[in-house]
Amino acid sequence: MHTNRIFNFNPGPAALPLSVLEEIQSSFLDFAGTGMSITEISHRSKWFDEIVNDAIDRTRRLLKLSNDYHVLFLQGGASLQFGMIPMNFLPDGRSADYINTGTWSAKAIKEVEILKKSVRVIASSEDKNFSYIPEDIQVSPGSVYVHLTSNNTIKGTQWSEFPETSGVPLIADMSSDFMSRPFDPKAFGVIYAGAQKNIGPAGVCMVILRDDLLKRVPDDLPSMLKYTTFASTNSMYNTPPQRKLSTPAIPLFS
Amino acid sequence: MHTNRIFNFNPGPAALPLSVLEEIQSSFLDFAGTGMSITEISHRSKWFDEIVNDAIDRTRRLLKLSNDYHVLFLQGGASLQFGMIPMNFLPDGRSADYINTGTWSAKAIKEVEILKKSVRVIASSEDKNFSYIPEDIQVSPGSVYVHLTSNNTIKGTQWSEFPETSGVPLIADMSSDFMSRPFDPKAFGVIYAGAQKNIGPAGVCMVILRDDLLKRVPDDLPSMLKYTTFASTNSMYNTPPQRKLSTPAIPLFS
Repeated sequence: MHTNRIFNFNPGPAALPLSVLEEIQSSFLDFAGTGMSITEISHRSKWFDEIVNDAIDRTRRLLKLSNDYHVLFLQGGASLQFGMIPMNFLPDGRSADYINTGTWSAKAIKEVEILKKSVRVIASSEDKNFSYIPEDIQVSPGSVYVHLTSNNTIKGTQWSEFPETSGVPLIADMSSDFMSRPFDPKAFGVIYAGAQKNIGPAGVCMVILRDDLLKRVPDDLPSMLKYTTFASTNSMYNTPPQRKLSTPAIPLFS
Repeated sequence: MHTNRIFNFNPGPAALPLSVLEEIQSSFLDFAGTGMSITEISHRSKWFDEIVNDAIDRTRRLLKLSNDYHVLFLQGGASLQFGMIPMNFLPDGRSADYINTGTWSAKAIKEVEILKKSVRVIASSEDKNFSYIPEDIQVSPGSVYVHLTSNNTIKGTQWSEFPETSGVPLIADMSSDFMSRPFDPKAFGVIYAGAQKNIGPAGVCMVILRDDLLKRVPDDLPSMLKYTTFASTNSMYNTPPQRKLSTPAIPLFS
């Protein structure tokens, strides 16, 4: 029956392991003996707390995250992060550094420009059609963060060693290679990744955020656009995308 | 096997019909003969286009929507709409009218205040613990829209007739009673509803928006926070919450 499984290498969601899909399927009408589908249980229930906390614990263990990092689940994908990062961490009158290694970096840069905030592109491989990763990265004086895209699927480039930023928070969109290789999370202030490529189905975006950065979040952002809202509620300020945090996401890497 | 099904009346997601859950379950490993789960197919595929367009067509038919309304699917729930509505439709220097009939109205009002925009609460039932729906609503001169919550689950009140706003766009959070009764959509500029109560699982929010309002959307909002982005891409600017738009959402009402 499953000998003809097709793997999608087109844009959007990627394949999930068959065992993961089968586990979702078999428990779909009765999650953990609740008599309810996971799509039906309350996000204020102990069952759902366990799902979220298990996903967080596995993430912490796999990435060897220290306690000063939050593991958050947001909606809107990396595309919403492109806006939220500058809204939360780039005050007017300050500037952030971006490294442009392709389509997704360029989209992240564009969102800062849309917000009329100050962005410096401190390195780019656009001169050779994004065919390489820039070296000798120099952080600008006064930069509030440095943003990069860890892997560029369209051009086939990937950072092997991440730049040293002398204490300026490094922020990475890891959507397309998150959890596909070991890396040192301590180098980063924020890591974000839309789940659909590597860790689960579309509709949830994992954000790993160092605690001290929460102090930078301004008050005048809508609640759903502040990282503090998610950090203070274990990502359950409102009803989360409930099917997306289920165990299937994580056995991939354990 | 399914005689012990439990219905969740707690906060968050509500029950889905068993036939809907069974359809999801049976097609979960092989959606429409694709050899892929719906969680795996590309959102740029004809299969997914059909899912989205079918959900839109059913919505149009059930609500008797005219062609000047867009049917959009966003993430972030009604809580993100509380912020997006004023970000998109309430320019600085103007004012919007809100009607306060309970917890969710108050949350919507609070998000306008967070944005430091001007909100007028033109009617409220707070004086009697939100036990009634205010009557004789008077729209403020110059108001750019009027916002209300169509149903208040916590206090058990519901609008039976919606107020006449003399051409000022009426915006309604219908999360808890959307598609549970007939109503005239022509009275509204925007209707939004988190799916998880009435039309499907958590993780998608339906937004029905009258076309002329798109002209009011400012340029300087992040792409994922502009309604124009979703209207111009049939809600597929980025990877959508793919399991949430599947047929299960709609057979409830057809």
